[in-house]
Amino acid sequence: MLDPTTLTLNIPHTTKPRVVIIGGGFGGLNLAKNLKGKDFQVVLLDRQNYHGFWPLLYQVATAGLEPDAIAEPLRKMFGSDKFEDFYFRLVKVNGVNTAEKTVHTIIGDLAYDYLVIATGTKSNYFGNEQIKKNAFPLKQIPHALNLRSQLLQCFEQASMTQDPVLQQSLLNFVIVGGGPTGVETAGALAEMRKHILPSDYPGVDFSKMNIYLIEGMDRVLPPMSPQSSAKTLKYLQELSIHVKLNMLVETYDGQVAKLKGGQLIKTQTLVWAAGVQGALIEGFPTKTIERGRILVNPYNQVMDFDNIFAIGDIALMKTEKWPNGHPGVAQPAIQQGKLLAKNLHRLVTGQNLEPFTYHDKGSLAIIGRNRAVADLSKKMQVGGFLAWVIWLLVHLMYLIGFRNKLVVLSNWVYKFFTYQSGTRLIIRPFVRKGDLVKRRFLSKYETE
Amino acid sequence: MLDPTTLTLNIPHTTKPRVVIIGGGFGGLNLAKNLKGKDFQVVLLDRQNYHGFWPLLYQVATAGLEPDAIAEPLRKMFGSDKFEDFYFRLVKVNGVNTAEKTVHTIIGDLAYDYLVIATGTKSNYFGNEQIKKNAFPLKQIPHALNLRSQLLQCFEQASMTQDPVLQQSLLNFVIVGGGPTGVETAGALAEMRKHILPSDYPGVDFSKMNIYLIEGMDRVLPPMSPQSSAKTLKYLQELSIHVKLNMLVETYDGQVAKLKGGQLIKTQTLVWAAGVQGALIEGFPTKTIERGRILVNPYNQVMDFDNIFAIGDIALMKTEKWPNGHPGVAQPAIQQGKLLAKNLHRLVTGQNLEPFTYHDKGSLAIIGRNRAVADLSKKMQVGGFLAWVIWLLVHLMYLIGFRNKLVVLSNWVYKFFTYQSGTRLIIRPFVRKGDLVKRRFLSKYETE
Repeated sequence: MLDPTTLTLNIPHTTKPRVVIIGGGFGGLNLAKNLKGKDFQVVLLDRQNYHGFWPLLYQVATAGLEPDAIAEPLRKMFGSDKFEDFYFRLVKVNGVNTAEKTVHTIIGDLAYDYLVIATGTKSNYFGNEQIKKNAFPLKQIPHALNLRSQLLQCFEQASMTQDPVLQQSLLNFVIVGGGPTGVETAGALAEMRKHILPSDYPGVDFSKMNIYLIEGMDRVLPPMSPQSSAKTLKYLQELSIHVKLNMLVETYDGQVAKLKGGQLIKTQTLVWAAGVQGALIEGFPTKTIERGRILVNPYNQVMDFDNIFAIGDIALMKTEKWPNGHPGVAQPAIQQGKLLAKNLHRLVTGQNLEPFTYHDKGSLAIIGRNRAVADLSKKMQVGGFLAWVIWLLVHLMYLIGFRNKLVVLSNWVYKFFTYQSGTRLIIRPFVRKGDLVKRRFLSKYETE
Repeated sequence: MLDPTTLTLNIPHTTKPRVVIIGGGFGGLNLAKNLKGKDFQVVLLDRQNYHGFWPLLYQVATAGLEPDAIAEPLRKMFGSDKFEDFYFRLVKVNGVNTAEKTVHTIIGDLAYDYLVIATGTKSNYFGNEQIKKNAFPLKQIPHALNLRSQLLQCFEQASMTQDPVLQQSLLNFVIVGGGPTGVETAGALAEMRKHILPSDYPGVDFSKMNIYLIEGMDRVLPPMSPQSSAKTLKYLQELSIHVKLNMLVETYDGQVAKLKGGQLIKTQTLVWAAGVQGALIEGFPTKTIERGRILVNPYNQVMDFDNIFAIGDIALMKTEKWPNGHPGVAQPAIQQGKLLAKNLHRLVTGQNLEPFTYHDKGSLAIIGRNRAVADLSKKMQVGGFLAWVIWLLVHLMYLIGFRNKLVVLSNWVYKFFTYQSGTRLIIRPFVRKGDLVKRRFLSKYETE
């Protein structure tokens, strides 16, 4: 077995100031790309070797797309670029020492001149360890593959039992959280129930399949306009999804979900999309953290540090217009990443920094075939087929990589005309004894 | 956790004779498809929920294709068919009781009128448990995803060490077995080394990367013509692959491969493509087994049983032209499956059975970009670009599913023009504690 102590980060020393970016998501990627040619050494650290287009992750979970359609290898994105003095390292960051200006990893420390935290978010179970242990999260590609395997195995098992109670628990799906991930997953499952499952599983009565969407607030898609929330609720109900508003899941032991008020739902599958929290890194003073995020000024600088920045979902920038911070979507991260590249250049050349202003490009959610909602501006909302077309175009436009666009487009065209999605494969690898040995080391690079 | 005893195979009793097919590969699939409308109840059992196009598996391992490009869900293949009285069950068969005419699974027994063994092959380690534990096999989709993760992590780690011995062991790849799988994997790795890896990993000197191809016999691709073997060897050497003929790997502890004669190769990655054996099922008399396969007569009937058949790679049918059985490729399985469907109908309608004659359609192997070999007939061999075009067309033609053809074609076109393959993602899911609980049951359906 490889000994991690024999590895090192292996970044050469140069005279250029070193920018260390933790996280290759929307923020980190756009920052790194825009630092090209600006006379920095750029080190990008990520525990995954790809940049993911997370708005489409639910399609991997619901057998609509394969991972390569929504993810692009980070090295490929930078490799063709001839970006001198750029280094990617596949490694998890364990902590930061702000006094010594170093980040800690299991294979050693790395000194920085400028540090940018762009780690995004992880699932928030609000301290409920039982739910954390038994629920299916949906934040990363392995999560989506796990959930896909689970869904398909539930259907397979439902065809192999005559016990009505067991069958019902296999056919009950509880999705907790009425944000975009929850709504889109519920909608995709409802479309599967309608168009795919009855012909795949002729022995199973899919009128028994229940999809529950549980939301703690009084409307679905709380960040969107009330008009879009109302339309979404209507669409969800048209798809026979049981939407429960003002409702919480209190316990889930892997078999039974207990709701606030006492209702019990027997289910083998509870999807947790109820909340996220910043993926914090150890080593920051308590005063720089608020509600699980890192407080930043309008230049994305972390309080008291000239040379440490946080961008995207991990950053909490309070402004007059956004007193609770910007929405947790791709656009603030992209825009902050691009601006910070400019500001780092201004910083080293002695210019004044430019404060961040968020350009809200609106928000979108898809509920099913031909059903979507779009808040194009404060005053303009659209729904139905038009919003659905906008959703498709916008997602294709922002999708990473020429090849991914083609893969996704051809999948969607095929699906539109055949009602079939293509990837109903149970490919969750099993663990062989030999693999376990190899995985023990690899798993240190992986994380929840 | 689900208790397997609460599941049952759940196949209704009808007056039609029941054909139980074990395995949804080329043989089982073509048999089942052709039994439609022939007045049988057909039960297809497989431990995977998909039919795989295994000739392209190495492209999943070498980051050229995603699993959905080479696999199609079995239920999808039969679901659109309106095939009355067809049942698919995702379950592993543990044994057969020929006296009682039942097959055993962990969720109960199933009676059969006719039984067809179409289980194909599994890796043959020739009793070497140490190699079995440490090598990477390449027979199933999870194997290919495991190997892809391993290759990519080796390159990542090679960029993170200054220890020359460790780096060399990360950059040495040993492929054991000079059959089509070994040759095609070696060729794909060599193409990656040439076109992709230097720009992905600018800090690594890929002139140090060694690809070893070890073959026990005196030529590569032993089942093909000597002319094609010689051409293949030339192509492999042009791609700077170290081919060692008449050579065996004696031990591999996960770190060092010891070859016959004493040469030691330090490597983190040994791919085992050296041999296969029949994926036998318990319960058959010893006299029906020869060299790990089930002996069958020209009607694919197993000795002494009128109602038990074996088709494809698991079957050993000795004929004058093929005294050691047919080649272990798709065509004999496809042709035997189709013929057996006819013969089962003849059997129940009192007609004479038709003996099997193999129509050899030639054989093909690809070594790299523009390099392939084809034995079109005993007398006609082609190589180079022409064989490469034939290889592409034949594989596209036989690929399962309209959608898969499109996915693969668009991937290949993209790759041809950009030299890039698209899926260099490390997506091997990690195991969470909660998942382990769920996997404990699921894993019983899975197998090596």
